Amino acid sequence: MYSEKYPSHLLEDAVQAIGSLPGIGKRSALRLALHLLRQPQENVHHFAESIVRLRDETLYCKECMMISDEETCSICSDKSRDHRTICVVENVRDVMSIENTGQYHGVYHVLGGIISPIDGIGPSDLTIQQLTRRVEGLSSDAEAPQVEVILALSGDVEGETTSFYIYRQIASFGVKVSSLARGLGFGDDLEYADELTLGRSIVNRQIFKP
Amino acid sequence: MYSEKYPSHLLEDAVQAIGSLPGIGKRSALRLALHLLRQPQENVHHFAESIVRLRDETLYCKECMMISDEETCSICSDKSRDHRTICVVENVRDVMSIENTGQYHGVYHVLGGIISPIDGIGPSDLTIQQLTRRVEGLSSDAEAPQVEVILALSGDVEGETTSFYIYRQIASFGVKVSSLARGLGFGDDLEYADELTLGRSIVNRQIFKP
Repeated sequence: MYSEKYPSHLLEDAVQAIGSLPGIGKRSALRLALHLLRQPQENVHHFAESIVRLRDETLYCKECMMISDEETCSICSDKSRDHRTICVVENVRDVMSIENTGQYHGVYHVLGGIISPIDGIGPSDLTIQQLTRRVEGLSSDAEAPQVEVILALSGDVEGETTSFYIYRQIASFGVKVSSLARGLGFGDDLEYADELTLGRSIVNRQIFKP
Repeated sequence: MYSEKYPSHLLEDAVQAIGSLPGIGKRSALRLALHLLRQPQENVHHFAESIVRLRDETLYCKECMMISDEETCSICSDKSRDHRTICVVENVRDVMSIENTGQYHGVYHVLGGIISPIDGIGPSDLTIQQLTRRVEGLSSDAEAPQVEVILALSGDVEGETTSFYIYRQIASFGVKVSSLARGLGFGDDLEYADELTLGRSIVNRQIFKP
């Protein structure tokens, strides 16, 4: 509804910058810019600085490609974790979600995306080569326990494609490859489940453990 | 749903800063921070700089208190506008909305808020004193046409209170005081109008001009 007539160039620049963020329209951007204008100067400086520092100083773990303050992230440098079980995920948020469950004690590998020809993302845009080398290195130690790679990617076409591509890259190293269990969510009602999920959870039914 | 366990302090700081903006939760803040992390460094620097410059360099017009790049805003320095008609609004966005209509050729006065005892905002927190002095100065010229002050505030209790307060401050200067027309919106169906609006638009009915 707002025309391009802003009362000040500074406001216009800020609105354009904020409006370039995903999911924030021109109207919200104006509201946020005017909010920032009313905040104490030091708060606004801190706001801007934290974003610049995020971009300039964030490191990526040389093992798992996860965002980190150090060269090796806190998960990869944690000796109590199982370093021969690698959970392959699309992005940082997936790591945070799985960590939140408290159910996983292995390490991760962050692909940084998913194979998607429509978006022009191929295997070389992801960290698949690093994963392959990492798995090769681990599995070359014949004395150690078998390596397990968990493909924890989304269940859509892109996720399945990426899982299959990775499987083909690492299958020859003699590692165990698994993927996340799929089925009805805990507490889900049958009548509200989608047909595909319900159908697969019948086919892949599990032994009842009372 | 996300715990406070962030993989990096830089990310945590940025998420907290972004999440402090109104209407942006922790989850959206994380999404935005990870988006910024993927952008080219110069874009992120420009983003932060435009916000810092907005806060540090924005001026307020000494006439109407509007956001401005100069000491006097583009509206107040426009000699083709009627400087003896002052439209009193709550904030910058209201000025932009009215300017967008293209129907108003007077000047503005931005209060910077509205009297709201619940939020602890009293008359001294707004630019009412500047408005009073401005109206007094304009109306002291007995040769010039009568000054008109349009109270373009919202129709709720706070808006009505603020309008009444301002009216009492400026009534003695012999100025014309008006407020926005209220009634059914153009194109509104009667059956969907709220009772208060419909009732008032019958009481304040206008002569039919075919």
